Amino acid sequence: MSAPDAGPVPASPAPPLAGVLAVVGVGLIGGSFAAAMRQAGAAGTILGAGRQPQTLARAQRLGLIDEAVTLEEAASRADLILLSVPVGATGAVLARMAPHLRSGTLLTDAGSTKADVARAARQALGDRIAQFIPGHPIAGAEATGPEAARNDLYQGRTVVLTPLPENRESDRLLLRRAWEACGAHVVSMQPEAHDAALASVSHMPHFLASVFMGQVAAATDSGQRMALAGTGFRDFTRIAAGSPEMWRDVFLANRKAVLDELAEFREALDRAEQSLRDEDGQSLYDFLERAALARRFWGSRSRL
Amino acid sequence: MSAPDAGPVPASPAPPLAGVLAVVGVGLIGGSFAAAMRQAGAAGTILGAGRQPQTLARAQRLGLIDEAVTLEEAASRADLILLSVPVGATGAVLARMAPHLRSGTLLTDAGSTKADVARAARQALGDRIAQFIPGHPIAGAEATGPEAARNDLYQGRTVVLTPLPENRESDRLLLRRAWEACGAHVVSMQPEAHDAALASVSHMPHFLASVFMGQVAAATDSGQRMALAGTGFRDFTRIAAGSPEMWRDVFLANRKAVLDELAEFREALDRAEQSLRDEDGQSLYDFLERAALARRFWGSRSRL
Repeated sequence: MSAPDAGPVPASPAPPLAGVLAVVGVGLIGGSFAAAMRQAGAAGTILGAGRQPQTLARAQRLGLIDEAVTLEEAASRADLILLSVPVGATGAVLARMAPHLRSGTLLTDAGSTKADVARAARQALGDRIAQFIPGHPIAGAEATGPEAARNDLYQGRTVVLTPLPENRESDRLLLRRAWEACGAHVVSMQPEAHDAALASVSHMPHFLASVFMGQVAAATDSGQRMALAGTGFRDFTRIAAGSPEMWRDVFLANRKAVLDELAEFREALDRAEQSLRDEDGQSLYDFLERAALARRFWGSRSRL
Repeated sequence: MSAPDAGPVPASPAPPLAGVLAVVGVGLIGGSFAAAMRQAGAAGTILGAGRQPQTLARAQRLGLIDEAVTLEEAASRADLILLSVPVGATGAVLARMAPHLRSGTLLTDAGSTKADVARAARQALGDRIAQFIPGHPIAGAEATGPEAARNDLYQGRTVVLTPLPENRESDRLLLRRAWEACGAHVVSMQPEAHDAALASVSHMPHFLASVFMGQVAAATDSGQRMALAGTGFRDFTRIAAGSPEMWRDVFLANRKAVLDELAEFREALDRAEQSLRDEDGQSLYDFLERAALARRFWGSRSRL
């Protein structure tokens, strides 16, 4: 019984976006999502699943997850599931989870390619495909493992969602809100457009940095060379330290778009090399100036 | 008259390594040398010379130099002179200074290539060549101008000296001490060995980053691509923002070594691309793993 002159009944806190959140693969990306969702009060219980029991135990000790569970338990208990696994493993993980999923559960992923992930999800989930929204948080670091997870990793970063025609509007909105709760800026696009853009600005830098690093390391005098390497070398090659497994999967998954970019890069390389061969200072200057202006313009607008 | 029971006469402070230091080109590199030498008490008066009166005025306001002077005055007054000018300008600057140099004055430079600088110095200085010791501080940043100068830029960094047979041992020692006073680690090597190593670990990254940046910027959808660029892109392309004039000179000066490295890089690129074309996951993995291990090993040993 409430007295008529009492103030307004205090609103009970809004329920979390995900009563039960499950993260498959609790490394940098998955662990940071768990930490950011918890920090925002956007997740109730957080479950962790993955291949390595030791990794799950470390994630639990770090407070990233409340419980380590199997893929099947994650599927049957969670309201929202983020897959953070090498893109080549997406289909197999979803196939194991599919029979245990509740109809209200929403799944997404964090893979660096999206067309192949959408295909693999369709095959694994069949008529449950509406429950899966492909996604890609554009954030990362050379550090890996749950120890590298940070609740601010997604602050100010872009997350691309590539919704499928079958997805429900309410689910798209929920997923957008979840990423926004982590501090991210969310954009939507077609999977193929995502893959073409990322082939250019993410996969190509990794490919080229790795080719270059391998070439330097294979030189007979690599020790002397690398003793004279400075901060330019350090930054240019930083990404080459990344996970070979993850990146092999990315290149295979986005092979066609990366090969297209490589062809374009080779044309530009041919022109620049010809200018150098010809000792054509003006043409070299023009090429370097275009690149410098483009990079400075990008740097002045980027939030990174 | 000193009383026999007085303590030892206090030693007067050691005179600075360079009573009068002159820096030609008071930007990031020259300005930081001036600031570090002053901070270490290794320079008395510091003179600045260069093409742009405004830059010299800013350097003086910032306290990097005590006086802005002409090249001729710098030559006639300084004990130690650092040239920090595009390598292509070294010969012309030395030729203007040569008639005014005192016999005790020591000159050095900060250019990114050394064989061509040694040749230009020989031509410009003639029988005064013993007074010039080529050098290269391996430090820098995308920032330019006197405002970017820092007295700790050389702390823990490597400075390569490529002494000429004519240089006096006492001058080599003085120059080594000056750089060490700035916090640098000094190594000596042949100009050609320096240029080959730097072609690999410095000039190639700049060339490749610039080709890549130009290729992305030239794409019809470059805006969309670059909106999705992350920290990998940021670091991989950072150096492409550098001075087109300086880098044109570097590439022309070290043309042969850079072309040799480009040929090696193309071979490595061909192999990696073929693995991708063939969808050869094992070979891709091996290539990525070699690069990752090499980069992680370098990172674990580098002071950068």
